[in-house]
Amino acid sequence: MRQKELSDLFMLVREKRPLVHHITNYVTVNDCANITICAGGAPVMADAPEEVEEMTAVAGALVLNIGTLNAAQIESMILAGGMANDRKIPVILDPVGAGATRFRTETVQRLLDELKVSVLKGNAGEIGVLAGAGGKVRGVDSHGLAGDVVSIAKDYAKTAKLVVSISGATDIVTDGKRALLVENGHPLMGSISGTGCMAASVTGAFCAVSGDFVKASAAALAAFGLAGERAAEGARGPYSFRTALFDELAGLTPADLVKGAKIRSP
Amino acid sequence: MRQKELSDLFMLVREKRPLVHHITNYVTVNDCANITICAGGAPVMADAPEEVEEMTAVAGALVLNIGTLNAAQIESMILAGGMANDRKIPVILDPVGAGATRFRTETVQRLLDELKVSVLKGNAGEIGVLAGAGGKVRGVDSHGLAGDVVSIAKDYAKTAKLVVSISGATDIVTDGKRALLVENGHPLMGSISGTGCMAASVTGAFCAVSGDFVKASAAALAAFGLAGERAAEGARGPYSFRTALFDELAGLTPADLVKGAKIRSP
Amino acid sequence: MRQKELSDLFMLVREKRPLVHHITNYVTVNDCANITICAGGAPVMADAPEEVEEMTAVAGALVLNIGTLNAAQIESMILAGGMANDRKIPVILDPVGAGATRFRTETVQRLLDELKVSVLKGNAGEIGVLAGAGGKVRGVDSHGLAGDVVSIAKDYAKTAKLVVSISGATDIVTDGKRALLVENGHPLMGSISGTGCMAASVTGAFCAVSGDFVKASAAALAAFGLAGERAAEGARGPYSFRTALFDELAGLTPADLVKGAKIRSP
Repeated sequence: MRQKELSDLFMLVREKRPLVHHITNYVTVNDCANITICAGGAPVMADAPEEVEEMTAVAGALVLNIGTLNAAQIESMILAGGMANDRKIPVILDPVGAGATRFRTETVQRLLDELKVSVLKGNAGEIGVLAGAGGKVRGVDSHGLAGDVVSIAKDYAKTAKLVVSISGATDIVTDGKRALLVENGHPLMGSISGTGCMAASVTGAFCAVSGDFVKASAAALAAFGLAGERAAEGARGPYSFRTALFDELAGLTPADLVKGAKIRSP
Repeated sequence: MRQKELSDLFMLVREKRPLVHHITNYVTVNDCANITICAGGAPVMADAPEEVEEMTAVAGALVLNIGTLNAAQIESMILAGGMANDRKIPVILDPVGAGATRFRTETVQRLLDELKVSVLKGNAGEIGVLAGAGGKVRGVDSHGLAGDVVSIAKDYAKTAKLVVSISGATDIVTDGKRALLVENGHPLMGSISGTGCMAASVTGAFCAVSGDFVKASAAALAAFGLAGERAAEGARGPYSFRTALFDELAGLTPADLVKGAKIRSP
Repeated sequence: MRQKELSDLFMLVREKRPLVHHITNYVTVNDCANITICAGGAPVMADAPEEVEEMTAVAGALVLNIGTLNAAQIESMILAGGMANDRKIPVILDPVGAGATRFRTETVQRLLDELKVSVLKGNAGEIGVLAGAGGKVRGVDSHGLAGDVVSIAKDYAKTAKLVVSISGATDIVTDGKRALLVENGHPLMGSISGTGCMAASVTGAFCAVSGDFVKASAAALAAFGLAGERAAEGARGPYSFRTALFDELAGLTPADLVKGAKIRSP
């Protein structure tokens, strides 16, 4: 990814301040709202079937997160996703805990069947389960995926016709043809709840301003990861790190991103 | 507003520690709980129809916030609001996102029709929509209101028979006859999620100890805004600002408030 | 409690990283998730009847918290609790606001009747109400309990056949025969929302790795309270205290716990 592209993309997020509509879990929803603002977007959270289509219709991106899934929410996700598809609004799906229960795995499958998902952003365990490549998920934590993860991700992206974005020590983003690896981030990001969810929100903000979801996803993960690296510097523990993570993303400039991003080909 | 009134009012909140019952959204609910404590009140959040009346009956104020509205919640709001009206407990309504979807606009209208709302606290966009004076709302963000906002607010307060409290760079509080402007606050308050919701919670704590909802609302917004001004001083970004905002409101004394409040007539 | 037992117990939490499944309120759920991680556990929050049994089946402990109770949640608590009982997984029940409304008091009674609860962790007011010993609860705050609280707790633990854990300035943990008092903690813990809920989560993490729920509960409260003491040192107010509370628990070592724990017999 060229420096100018990366810089322009981040500037565009900040200029356009895209509305990112979330149907998400109640554990990390506040983190998602605040990180969206820090990235440069405007968050909205609404999940009633009476209004999700109307809210989605004016959004720049739709983020679906199944962290505390329930039956009513699935209905709203289908409605909102349908509207997003009609309007060509990118849909980011975070399959939190897919593989941990049948309800989650089957719901993700249903969402993938009924909606055109633009970006499927999960951890290695979740994506592994969905790709039928093994993958272990306990609760909402990935316990990894054996084998050549890049190949698994590429194959699955091709089959499922979407961009796969796997967060981890090295993030992998691929549409089946192209693949980008992002090596930004810090181990402290795994010491707090919600960084996976937040990564999906930031991805939403970036995809809202670009038609290239591979580059947009990689740029989003680089920006978020770079904020994590900077936040780790003065942190006295996971929660002061968390405070700094928001501050650092908000303060990150396009020039900082160009300088600090570690995006490369596999 | 005289200095002694302002000081006495804030002291009364701290002494009485009024119970502020919330039926609110799941995005900023934790912020609302903590800011209520910092202001001097005791928060309680409950929204099951089985118990909202009983909980409201012992509260000092009821805060209704439609940030993540759903059908079940409307029923609980009507029940709780009815109990509050019977017991002469002030009802603060925060019409989050009114104007963004029909569901929100119509629900606010229904709540205003079926309940006696004491204070309607929104941003300029939301109040503008409800007053039929234009007003633009995208997601949950106000995109302003053209024209003489003080006159619009006064007229609407008179017609709707309630206190209108509009948060913004300059807050406007009016019951249609009297009006007060509050010029406390800091731009960083717009850089985090939840400050609008929190302002409603603080308003609830102040209205719980006073029969004059114009003065109570203005005092609440002055205290909250002043905490924001102080918090901005050492902030390294929006999230460290947020931490300081709670700390500063908790540490604010009646003397600080008298000294720092910028409340004036239009 | 011997020093080696305390040290070994805390080390075991950190080594095993037990999955702590929560069915909890939406006010403090994020705090519960993060404090579980800081204690050494892995949190999961799920409350759909479709999946709670499957999620509970692989957990090390189940935490039930009625802070924002509703009818659907009760069904899920019964399902999850039944699975936990079948698998001998400890169940921690936090009866938030029991005594404040009939709905809460009756639901707690129903959960105690239908499930084998391992630890009932509440404040003095809640436990007093449930024990039929008086106890005052306003909203979700305890307003104390007159009389010999240790005797009341012991008698109730014996009758109800569970471990009673009462958080307060001095925490009391008893199974009816043995009793331990924990004198760790700091008044600032009462100045933020959620410390009661968080104490239940930490209790869950400790009970997940021990068969002795009296000692596990006391150790959990000592660790959490000690983190509070340390966090208070540099705090500029309740919210910077809150940040430090998470940091301090995450950084606490078994040696720190042994040195700082104030656990004694009555």
